[in-house]
Amino acid sequence: MTPSEHLDATFTALADPTRRAILARLARGEASVAELAEPFAISQPAISKHLKILERAGLVSRSRAATRRPCRIEGAPLAAANAWIERYRDLWESNYRRLDTLLDELQPERKPTPPKP
Amino acid sequence: MTPSEHLDATFTALADPTRRAILARLARGEASVAELAEPFAISQPAISKHLKILERAGLVSRSRAATRRPCRIEGAPLAAANAWIERYRDLWESNYRRLDTLLDELQPERKPTPPKP
Repeated sequence: MTPSEHLDATFTALADPTRRAILARLARGEASVAELAEPFAISQPAISKHLKILERAGLVSRSRAATRRPCRIEGAPLAAANAWIERYRDLWESNYRRLDTLLDELQPERKPTPPKP
Repeated sequence: MTPSEHLDATFTALADPTRRAILARLARGEASVAELAEPFAISQPAISKHLKILERAGLVSRSRAATRRPCRIEGAPLAAANAWIERYRDLWESNYRRLDTLLDELQPERKPTPPKP
């Protein structure tokens, strides 16, 4: 996979609430498919389908040694997705700065707060 | 849309190289659909389809006043996506820390570099 294809796979994997919940669970520690399926109102095969999409993106790896084959979360694809989004940090921070400026300009019109008793 | 549905829409929008390139172009300034289509080897209708997915996520807004209806990038959905990913920063940074520790442990076995002539 090229870096761009990796980003496609990562963002696709993150675009689903069940898959995001699976990652949140795995961030607390390794888990088997049965353990992952438990809190969700969906079947183990449905969880396995979600896990395949997460594995394709490299967000989840599975031990081949143990028979329960626990799943674990992998941080590298999240670091790459973060790096892509971070390029645009100025964009949203400048929006907040504009909002701050606007609030500052409105400030003098506000009534002064009364002194505490 | 709930915050979770917003994240679905944002990550779906980011999961395509053409849409990411459109955002990169718009980060440099507003552009019409024709201007956006120019550098890509795809038709204006294909670009419009991508723009709809970006607009649905709130990543792109279009002026209703001007006849050329320029597109502009909006930072807020990127801030929300960033906030979600940031929760896992410890995860990938601890991986890097483990790698650093490993490299430090290997250090003493390396041959000292010869002095410069």
